[in-house]
Amino acid sequence: MPPTDVPTLFHETWGEHAALIARTWQPRERTLGRVATQIIDVATPEDPLELELGGRLEHVAVAYEEYGEPSPAGDNTVLVCHALTGSAHAAGVGERDGAPGWWDALIGPGKAIDTDRFHVVCSNVLGGCYGTTGPSSIEPATGRPYATRFPRYTIRDMVHVQKRLLDRLGVTSLRAVIGGSMGGMQVLEWAATYPGMVRAIVPIAIGARHSAWAIGLNEVARRAIMMDPAWQGGAYRVDRQPEAGLGLARAIAMLSYRAHPSFDERFGRARWDGSAPPCPEGLGDAGAAYQVSRYLAYQGEKLVRRFDANTYLYLTLAMDDYDVGAGRGGAEAVLGRLTMPALVLGIDSDVLYPEPEVRALADALPNARYERIASPHGHDAFLIEFAQVSRHLSRFLA
Amino acid sequence: MPPTDVPTLFHETWGEHAALIARTWQPRERTLGRVATQIIDVATPEDPLELELGGRLEHVAVAYEEYGEPSPAGDNTVLVCHALTGSAHAAGVGERDGAPGWWDALIGPGKAIDTDRFHVVCSNVLGGCYGTTGPSSIEPATGRPYATRFPRYTIRDMVHVQKRLLDRLGVTSLRAVIGGSMGGMQVLEWAATYPGMVRAIVPIAIGARHSAWAIGLNEVARRAIMMDPAWQGGAYRVDRQPEAGLGLARAIAMLSYRAHPSFDERFGRARWDGSAPPCPEGLGDAGAAYQVSRYLAYQGEKLVRRFDANTYLYLTLAMDDYDVGAGRGGAEAVLGRLTMPALVLGIDSDVLYPEPEVRALADALPNARYERIASPHGHDAFLIEFAQVSRHLSRFLA
Repeated sequence: MPPTDVPTLFHETWGEHAALIARTWQPRERTLGRVATQIIDVATPEDPLELELGGRLEHVAVAYEEYGEPSPAGDNTVLVCHALTGSAHAAGVGERDGAPGWWDALIGPGKAIDTDRFHVVCSNVLGGCYGTTGPSSIEPATGRPYATRFPRYTIRDMVHVQKRLLDRLGVTSLRAVIGGSMGGMQVLEWAATYPGMVRAIVPIAIGARHSAWAIGLNEVARRAIMMDPAWQGGAYRVDRQPEAGLGLARAIAMLSYRAHPSFDERFGRARWDGSAPPCPEGLGDAGAAYQVSRYLAYQGEKLVRRFDANTYLYLTLAMDDYDVGAGRGGAEAVLGRLTMPALVLGIDSDVLYPEPEVRALADALPNARYERIASPHGHDAFLIEFAQVSRHLSRFLA
Repeated sequence: MPPTDVPTLFHETWGEHAALIARTWQPRERTLGRVATQIIDVATPEDPLELELGGRLEHVAVAYEEYGEPSPAGDNTVLVCHALTGSAHAAGVGERDGAPGWWDALIGPGKAIDTDRFHVVCSNVLGGCYGTTGPSSIEPATGRPYATRFPRYTIRDMVHVQKRLLDRLGVTSLRAVIGGSMGGMQVLEWAATYPGMVRAIVPIAIGARHSAWAIGLNEVARRAIMMDPAWQGGAYRVDRQPEAGLGLARAIAMLSYRAHPSFDERFGRARWDGSAPPCPEGLGDAGAAYQVSRYLAYQGEKLVRRFDANTYLYLTLAMDDYDVGAGRGGAEAVLGRLTMPALVLGIDSDVLYPEPEVRALADALPNARYERIASPHGHDAFLIEFAQVSRHLSRFLA
C-alpha cells in the first residue's frame, strides 16, 4: 500500500500543549513549517504481524512523519516515541489543521533534536487511533471498527511495528531513540530488542516496569470507561463515544500527570464563576464549582473529541504489561547488557513515575547519565519544561 | 430523646484495619472490652441546628462512644475525631459485631490515649452514616431517606454538633482534640472555633485547607458515583446502592491513601490467579488480572457493604470546602492565634496531604511541634503505623 493521507478522525492535536508551548517557550529557531502525516502498510497476508500475546494482523497501517534528511551513511536517524494519547505529529505545523507537533519546541532546524543534522521519524503506535491500525480501525472481515475484537498488543509489538516501518524507510541504524512516559517504555524495549541497531537512548520519566500503583491508576480509568452505559461493551458507534466514562478516565489520569504545587499555583481554592452542571438540590453545584474541577472536566471533554475510548483501554493495558525484564531474565540482567550511552531524565514532582523509580533505571544502565527536571508540573513536565529538556538533549546529542 | 441503640445499617466496621492491627501491632496492654455506641438528639424544634451554608435541622441524632471516666475537675476529656469513612467506634470491641475500634491500638487502659487517665469521646460526624443524622437517615417529613434533600454541611457544622454533644455530656474543657485526615480538619476547626475550651491539639496528616489536587481527587470520585445509573440522582433504595460507582470512587481514593512503595511491596506485578470479571473478548481479563486491580475492586466492594453513596458525596464536599482561615482573615491569621500546645504529625510517603503541606501547618502554629511518621504506607499510615503514632502521642499527652 502506498503512503496515503491520514484519516481525519481523532486527528485533532494537542491544543493545550500547544498553548503551553506558546506561553512557556519562545523558540528563536526556525520552524519546520508544514508537515504531512504519511501512512504505509507494514504487513501482508504473506508476512503478517504475529503479536506477543498470540494475535495476528495481516495488514498494519502505520501513520508516521519524517523531518530532516537521512545522511548518505544512513547513520543520523533519531526515532521519537510518543506517550499515551500522542500521535505521529511530533513537530512542525499540521498540513491540515495548522496545529504544532507535541514536541515542536524540541524538534526542528537548530533545535535540540536538530533536523539540520538528524533525520527524525515519529510514528503513531500500533493500536493507536491517529492513523495506525488499532481498535478504532475498520476490520476488513466485518467492515466495522474492530472495537474489542482487536487483538491485545504490547509495547514490544509496538516496537516490532516501528522496526518494520524503519525497514521500509531503509533505516538500519538509529542515532538515538527518545521518548517520555509510554514513549520511554518503547525506548527501553527498542534497546532491549534491537541492541545492535540502537546507538543511544533517552528514556524520560519512566522506570523499568509499570508499578503496582500505576497499574491501579490505569485500572480505575478503564473501569470509568467500562461503567459508562454508552460504552456498550465496546460496541459504541464511533460518533457516539462513552463521553462521561472517557472524560472521567482522563480526569483521573490528569491528577497523576500533574502535582500539588502546580494545581495549587494555578487553581488554589478558586471557584468557577460560570454555570456549573446541574446537581440534585441538596448537593448544589458545590463540587463542580471549584475551578480545578471544571478544569478536569474540560480536559475530559477535550480528550473525548480527539481520542477513542476502546483505544484508551488497549493502550493502558499495554502499559500495565510493560516490564522490560519480562522473558529476558529480569530487568537487572537485561538493563545491565545495554551498554549504549543513555540519558535518563526524571522529574522531581512526578507522582506517577516518581524520581526514585527513574533513578533506579539509570543506576541499572551501565552507561547512563541521570538528570533531574525541576518542575512544579509533575509528570507532564516533559511536555512543558522545554528549556530544561532541550538543554539536556542538546548536550547529549552533541 | 434518650440514648438508644445505633442502627445496624452501615455499622460493619473496619475489617481491613483490624487485620492490619493484628499484623503490625501486638498490644500488651489491657483492652477496653465490649463497648456500645450510644445515640443522643442534640437539637430540638426550639433549638434547631442552623447550618453554615443556610440549612436547618430540627433533630440531630449523634452516635457516640465514651471510654474512661471524667475526672471530678472535668479536665481530662480527650475528643477523638474520625476520618472520611470512620465511625464513633474508635476503641474497644463492638458490642454486637465484636469488631475492634479503628484506633483500638491507641485508646485503652495503659495505651497512648490512656483511659485510666482520660475520658475519651468519639462521635460519628454530622452527615455521616453510622448513626448520626445524615443523607441516609429518614427524613421526618417524608418517611424516606433524605438522600439529596439533606442540607449541605461543613466541617464547622460537624464541630458545632460535637460541641452540643459535649454540652449534654457535661464536658466544658478538652484536654486534647485529636484526629487524622478529615479528623484533623475537625481538630483545627475545634481550635479555631472554641479556642478557650481546647487545651491541646493533634492534627495528623492534614494541612490548613484542602488543596486543589485533593479537591480534584474528590471530584472524580463523586463523578464515579453520579455516573452509575444505579445512583438515580441520589434516589436509590438503601439496599440497592450504586455499587459500581461507589466501588470505583473508593478504588480511586485508595490510590491516594496508599503509595508506590507499599503497593510495590505488597502486590508488585503479581497476577491474580482466581477468576477475573468477564471482559469483552479482545480485552481479556488482563487488567483485572493484576493483584493490585483485584485489591482495589475488593476495597470498593467492602465499602459498598458498609457505607452510603450519598453520604460519600456530602462528606467529600465538606472536605473540599475545608479552609480553616475562611471567614477568619486567612489561615495565617487564625493559626497564629492558636497558642495551645500542638503536636502535628506528617507522613513522609503521603501523596494526598504531602509532608510540606503538613509541615507548613506546624510552622504557622505558634506552639507546635512537628513529627514525621516514616512509612511506606502513604496517607493511611496514621491507621497503620501505631507504634510511631503511639510514641508521639504518649510523649505529648504525658
